[in-house]
Amino acid sequence: MNGITWINLTRTRSFGKLQQIAKPGKRAVESSAVAEQQIAVTDQLYYNYAAKGITAEVEETLIALAAEQQCIAKYQALAAGEPVNTGEQRMVLHHLTRGRLVDEMQSGTEGLEQSYRDQHRRLAQFAAAVHEGHIKGSTGRRFDTVVQIGIGGSDLGPRSIYLGLRNYAARTAAGLKMRAHFISNVDPDDAAEVVSQVDPERTLFILVSKSGTTQETLTNEAFVVELMRRGSAAGLDPHKHMIAVTSQTSPLAKSKAYLDAFFIDDYIGGRYSSTSAVGSAILTLAFGEEIVGEFLAGAHQADVAALQSDPRRNAALMDALIGVYERNVLGYPATAVLPYSQALSRFPAHLQQLDMESNGKSVNRDGDAIDYPTGPIIFGEPGTNGQHSFYQLLHQGTDIVPLQFIGFRASQLEHDVTVDGSTSQTKLNANLAAQIVAFSHGKEDVNSNRAFAGGRSSSLLHAARLTPHTLGALLSHFENKVMFQGFLWNINSFDQEGVQLGKVLAKQLLSGNAGGALGAYAALLGV
Amino acid sequence: MNGITWINLTRTRSFGKLQQIAKPGKRAVESSAVAEQQIAVTDQLYYNYAAKGITAEVEETLIALAAEQQCIAKYQALAAGEPVNTGEQRMVLHHLTRGRLVDEMQSGTEGLEQSYRDQHRRLAQFAAAVHEGHIKGSTGRRFDTVVQIGIGGSDLGPRSIYLGLRNYAARTAAGLKMRAHFISNVDPDDAAEVVSQVDPERTLFILVSKSGTTQETLTNEAFVVELMRRGSAAGLDPHKHMIAVTSQTSPLAKSKAYLDAFFIDDYIGGRYSSTSAVGSAILTLAFGEEIVGEFLAGAHQADVAALQSDPRRNAALMDALIGVYERNVLGYPATAVLPYSQALSRFPAHLQQLDMESNGKSVNRDGDAIDYPTGPIIFGEPGTNGQHSFYQLLHQGTDIVPLQFIGFRASQLEHDVTVDGSTSQTKLNANLAAQIVAFSHGKEDVNSNRAFAGGRSSSLLHAARLTPHTLGALLSHFENKVMFQGFLWNINSFDQEGVQLGKVLAKQLLSGNAGGALGAYAALLGV
Repeated sequence: MNGITWINLTRTRSFGKLQQIAKPGKRAVESSAVAEQQIAVTDQLYYNYAAKGITAEVEETLIALAAEQQCIAKYQALAAGEPVNTGEQRMVLHHLTRGRLVDEMQSGTEGLEQSYRDQHRRLAQFAAAVHEGHIKGSTGRRFDTVVQIGIGGSDLGPRSIYLGLRNYAARTAAGLKMRAHFISNVDPDDAAEVVSQVDPERTLFILVSKSGTTQETLTNEAFVVELMRRGSAAGLDPHKHMIAVTSQTSPLAKSKAYLDAFFIDDYIGGRYSSTSAVGSAILTLAFGEEIVGEFLAGAHQADVAALQSDPRRNAALMDALIGVYERNVLGYPATAVLPYSQALSRFPAHLQQLDMESNGKSVNRDGDAIDYPTGPIIFGEPGTNGQHSFYQLLHQGTDIVPLQFIGFRASQLEHDVTVDGSTSQTKLNANLAAQIVAFSHGKEDVNSNRAFAGGRSSSLLHAARLTPHTLGALLSHFENKVMFQGFLWNINSFDQEGVQLGKVLAKQLLSGNAGGALGAYAALLGV
Repeated sequence: MNGITWINLTRTRSFGKLQQIAKPGKRAVESSAVAEQQIAVTDQLYYNYAAKGITAEVEETLIALAAEQQCIAKYQALAAGEPVNTGEQRMVLHHLTRGRLVDEMQSGTEGLEQSYRDQHRRLAQFAAAVHEGHIKGSTGRRFDTVVQIGIGGSDLGPRSIYLGLRNYAARTAAGLKMRAHFISNVDPDDAAEVVSQVDPERTLFILVSKSGTTQETLTNEAFVVELMRRGSAAGLDPHKHMIAVTSQTSPLAKSKAYLDAFFIDDYIGGRYSSTSAVGSAILTLAFGEEIVGEFLAGAHQADVAALQSDPRRNAALMDALIGVYERNVLGYPATAVLPYSQALSRFPAHLQQLDMESNGKSVNRDGDAIDYPTGPIIFGEPGTNGQHSFYQLLHQGTDIVPLQFIGFRASQLEHDVTVDGSTSQTKLNANLAAQIVAFSHGKEDVNSNRAFAGGRSSSLLHAARLTPHTLGALLSHFENKVMFQGFLWNINSFDQEGVQLGKVLAKQLLSGNAGGALGAYAALLGV
């Protein structure tokens, strides 16, 4: 790529400087910083990093690091269709599923923007036909339930977004169209539990597998088909109860087993596919076209904001830079994602996949071993629940864990109760504000067991309400943060070779080829 | 306590030796070790640590460490009622909720064993009356749904156990008695979503708060009461739809607002309360007395096994020792809990609380600062789901994360399908066996991006099936592991002073007293 150089983090001048100037000591957040250290992700979502405790000198050096690693030029090259997925020599085009970011596109991208838009449009038409009763189940009953069968990227993203918007949709004009469920695990109890909760006559299944060969997903498809052939739903025609989302080159694409098929391609990684047909199929069926359109618009607006070259105006880039500082200079091994919103209960699980699968790498993009830490462990649960659980370690444990808080001024349903002079929503946010300050300021105490060291850094993503637009922007913010961190670490964030070996050994076992330790464990587990 | 000395980990002779002999290099598991390095937790659950890669010399030294830190004597003292919760000067008696472990009990324990048993018995009688229709809702309809209102220890343990046994109970003679739901978060969307899914006329709420003052829980109680007074369920009598589980000294204990009240006491920590009335209330209503009895028996059997002085016959102690070796000698910051069972989907969240809240401490039991790492970060999701998500980092990331696998030979429902010559359950376990070996053995490859270093350690807890007895034993195994690690680190695993500061600041805000940074964040969040 013209004018772009790819070098390891530790070979940059800025990294050397960061190591010299790092001051891990306590820096309690001041009220003036709260107003100053804030960046708009979109016109509705804000990233506040006042409680990160970054000195002005560190911030300046991080900004120099972003320039040195050419983060924006690399993002532009990616968006234009350069094959930045070096391991698989593939383009990385998930941004294009929600809108175009650069004028000039590389060769090979012809028609792809249109093709992604076509799939969203086809899904909108299909969903409308289902909602209006033009498409019905095989016994002539209307569909009122949709079940996604998929795993990994075909599960965590769509599931967390569905849960994130379910309450919202239930009270809007656009409305909740259908209840959704998800089957992911090859554990047969998963599928059995889900199908026990639905009426198959009124259920539309969505089979999602890009390759069309995912073992878990095909097995769960067979589970459902068997149910309609010989099981408790015998008599239903499975072909009339299932659509597929897959690539046009997959075995599923040409199958007559589905009512219809919708497409993605190799340029959309599984964990980045929530804004492709993988996500929009179930989201459009569950919420309708309008809500999905707002969701995509929010993601696109955040994508555009992430093109800003000044990190002080680019939330995803600033978040990425601070994360690298905390990981590689301060040596913190993990990051906790803490949404103060029950609707985001599974959003940390999606971010766990997005981040750990993208940046859990030990070789750089050229395949050379690297000698510095890359992606951290990501975990989290909603607040205030976490406060009554693992926050003890976050406050007083021996390791410092940087925190990523997420909060909203209003609840989704606005169905609330006033107790002791405040609503539940006010209590929720009072707790969130209190936690940020408690982690940052700490507290001295003559009883050392009741003392808090403070200096435990956090950032806050906040908005007026968790809407489709805001959730799209949140998703995009984290996708772009992870991408920028990949650039800073000089790794390929878009392949996942680490998942292959286990698959190979499992196949070996299932084909009866099990000696040594593999056979010994298989025997323990009754394989 | 007679003959017991409490010293910091790093002051033991064995710890110094461990640091000298530690060999972090790759040690691929051999098939012969799989049979040898296994310990019975109960007659139905086994702990296998063959893939931990521990040398014989390290194992011997860990055994010496257990003796030096007097782990068994301390456990016996705890079980006998010594106030090992030094911070709060309290006894730690959760073991007694499932059975007595030592002959001689300390003064102050008189009648407590009987009182815990009485609560289980009272709950069994109450649940039977509900199941038989002698106790009904205020409009005379039978209860078919139970909703627990609680947070932290009053939520995560009972919820994960309910989910763990729901499928099992659905197909047993004892049977599933009632559907259960849980409200925990002060986010009003949580309560609103749950109540939208139930018929209040047929719903019994269980309010669980040991202190009777938990802000979230009392607020959610008010939400439900308001619903019956003026909301969509107006006309119902809330007093006839709610029971309480609390301590006898709490404001709730004497309230007339409840149909009945069941009791725990200060010697049962929230995160250790699943086998007290906190857990048995909802579990007995959901599954009946018989299943709860098996669950308690499994926990007790594992408690008894944990009294064995030889770590080679004591799974919880061996697990604890290896964890300390990995944390303090090898320097690994986290542990992943990976159940190959969808029914255990929330069990890692419970263990996250149990472990991180117990051992996320920076001072020893005497209140002196300690200079070595204590409790690790705990996170996890069910397999095979995780394989398509964060396993990339586990296989090829720059940090090594020790793994705790859990597997079962048979599914709970045994409703399965054969695809490509194997059942789903066989595929599930083939994947589990394959992962253990892949992590341990690794794989060389000329393409460095496809190479696996190996030497990534794991252990396996396994049983024939996830039954009430096995789940009780699993729960007890982890509780006792955490307890032993607290002894090894010389910390108090039974208080949680780290959760206080945030509560104080939140109250300050809600009483209108918000200056400085606290006020600035409150303004951002609309408080």
